[in-house]
Amino acid sequence: MKTKTTENLFADRVANVPQSFIREILKVASNPAITSFAGGLPNPAFFPVKELEQCASRVFRQQGMQALQYASTEGYYPLREFISERYRQRYNLDIPPEQILITNGSQQALDLIGKIFINPGDHVLLERPTYLGALQCLSMFQPTFQEVQLNADGIDIGDLEDQLWSNPIKLFYGIPNFQNPTGIRYSADVRQQAVDILSRYNTYVIEDDPYGDIFFDETELPPLYAYMPEKTILLGSFSKTIAPGMRLGWMVANPEIIRKATIMKQASDLHSGNLTQYILHEFLTMYSLDAHIKKIQDTYRFQRDTMISCLKQYFPATVEYTHPQGGMFTWVTLPEEITARELLAKAIEQNIIFVPGDSFYARNPDTQTLRLNYSNVDEATMRKAMNTLGGMVAGLVEA
Amino acid sequence: MKTKTTENLFADRVANVPQSFIREILKVASNPAITSFAGGLPNPAFFPVKELEQCASRVFRQQGMQALQYASTEGYYPLREFISERYRQRYNLDIPPEQILITNGSQQALDLIGKIFINPGDHVLLERPTYLGALQCLSMFQPTFQEVQLNADGIDIGDLEDQLWSNPIKLFYGIPNFQNPTGIRYSADVRQQAVDILSRYNTYVIEDDPYGDIFFDETELPPLYAYMPEKTILLGSFSKTIAPGMRLGWMVANPEIIRKATIMKQASDLHSGNLTQYILHEFLTMYSLDAHIKKIQDTYRFQRDTMISCLKQYFPATVEYTHPQGGMFTWVTLPEEITARELLAKAIEQNIIFVPGDSFYARNPDTQTLRLNYSNVDEATMRKAMNTLGGMVAGLVEA
Repeated sequence: MKTKTTENLFADRVANVPQSFIREILKVASNPAITSFAGGLPNPAFFPVKELEQCASRVFRQQGMQALQYASTEGYYPLREFISERYRQRYNLDIPPEQILITNGSQQALDLIGKIFINPGDHVLLERPTYLGALQCLSMFQPTFQEVQLNADGIDIGDLEDQLWSNPIKLFYGIPNFQNPTGIRYSADVRQQAVDILSRYNTYVIEDDPYGDIFFDETELPPLYAYMPEKTILLGSFSKTIAPGMRLGWMVANPEIIRKATIMKQASDLHSGNLTQYILHEFLTMYSLDAHIKKIQDTYRFQRDTMISCLKQYFPATVEYTHPQGGMFTWVTLPEEITARELLAKAIEQNIIFVPGDSFYARNPDTQTLRLNYSNVDEATMRKAMNTLGGMVAGLVEA
Repeated sequence: MKTKTTENLFADRVANVPQSFIREILKVASNPAITSFAGGLPNPAFFPVKELEQCASRVFRQQGMQALQYASTEGYYPLREFISERYRQRYNLDIPPEQILITNGSQQALDLIGKIFINPGDHVLLERPTYLGALQCLSMFQPTFQEVQLNADGIDIGDLEDQLWSNPIKLFYGIPNFQNPTGIRYSADVRQQAVDILSRYNTYVIEDDPYGDIFFDETELPPLYAYMPEKTILLGSFSKTIAPGMRLGWMVANPEIIRKATIMKQASDLHSGNLTQYILHEFLTMYSLDAHIKKIQDTYRFQRDTMISCLKQYFPATVEYTHPQGGMFTWVTLPEEITARELLAKAIEQNIIFVPGDSFYARNPDTQTLRLNYSNVDEATMRKAMNTLGGMVAGLVEA
């Protein structure tokens, strides 16, 4: 009787949301003896702590009462102006601040998009594999997920066409720059071809771009939004460039979508942190974001180089991996005889953790895959742990 | 064709969410010539700006990297310990920190509750009138709303029984302390009787308590949670006591509900602002929250007294109003000949605004009612504007 009551109590959507295995792994990661390739944490050495302290003091002294009061749902206007101006400078895009909604990290933008677009059963197309947080968030709205294959240069164009043809797809969710979990970036060709196809269907694109600033070469590619602004919702974040603990991201979309997202955000939490928006804006005014990002790029590039050289040096030649040109992750495919969970069980015994790839699939998980994060481990520690891990893989292949 | 496409594009829930008329009124309020009784803004004179500046500096210097990093969905543990300990001190309640989830203001707790409980069509019982933000938030989940009448001492017990009898009610949403919009507090008797009845049904209680700290007399009454902890979800907020711009509130519930709410929160925005949680916790450690609240109570009590004396002195005797013993609002019922919107139209001409009561009803709005906020207007300004408003009412009655 008790059980039955509880079953009826909760909403149907609750059963839909996958729990995060990462969350369980990360609980282990708080042990300082552990070498973690598991998280998606930016390197805290680059949090501009001193600068933010000064900015906070200035905000409290000059605008304390405003920064601590209730504020507009859309977000702090000068911060939206900064984001607008940055799109103009980087991509020559004309996005007025009114088309920018500040969110609690770009994760919240996914919730708002789910709220305004997804009826139960609507088809949503995801990259295979995709960001676990998107899987979790969009699952709340009970869509039917479809998947499109990823190649080294982005989504598979033939498969994209097949998927769009197979069913009416309401939303396509993609991460064209240095994807989580694979580190893959869509090439210029893939972007153009993807947009050519997508524009022929009644499909809206969610372009998630938390890693676009963290590029390692000089070729910055325009967002899908630049090709198809009316039907693209572009998400950005300060979590990878400034600090995730401030929980500030944003959504760019056409005015009708922004209006609806604003109503949903007001109903969901009134507005994003106002104090943090003021402090962040002060930082962006006083310091050069690009100079700050340059330091992150240089370090992550070196860490990426170390990680790739370790994979080459310590792992059997049958192990495959991506060569990320930015972002924080590489994606490893183990030989057929080994699953990533088997490897993880052994790795944990040696105080090494990573995330098995199966969490990143909407269906039919590929159990041979795993994600390695390189942003948060120094060179010596990385070499040592990767050497151990490579030896384990070799051992498992032989066994 | 275009229109049809757009109609099909958005989710059904979008049409359900009422837009906030308050939002429109508050846009006028930014004009400094306006006397506003419209908002629900705490008085910024009590924001502890200097103290928070010091606390922020300390956090940046001592825990900067942790405070700026990604954090657990549940919230900063020491902050949850503080809230736990405060419930023990105030009400002798034993609520472990594990049963407390930090949210982006208590508004977000409503979103999480909607996510875990409400299937479309589920019955949700609201006070009549109720908090507009709850109407908006819960509407996203497409429930069937029912209403229970409010008397001067809380919900009408007979009506509560009728409503619970009429349909299976999944959730009852109430604000027992100094309700928004009416200022009404449930008496000890009403609390006991309400809980006696509610415990006989399969109904969970959302007890929203943003104003409980802002009491004007010495009689603090225990929350409904104290009577019925298994079936009550108690919401709290720092927005009325410290500062709303930090967006920090919390949810107390049984472990199963907290677990499900945590999964939903992770999917929705990963976690609440970490930096602000550290700063707030530093404040709560370094300063006395009760001493701070005492200053707010003293001022709001005086402003409440002024407001009530104005209503008595300047308004026709046929005007009725509540006598709040705490919180930020009084609720006015105009004589039958006048609607609040008529009065507002005239008031705006004289640079005075308030919120017509019709926004606060799930159905069949009472157009004679209006909400007056007294927390944010000084005595002289209040007297002048209330004198004008009273004269208008008298004029409209005679006309």
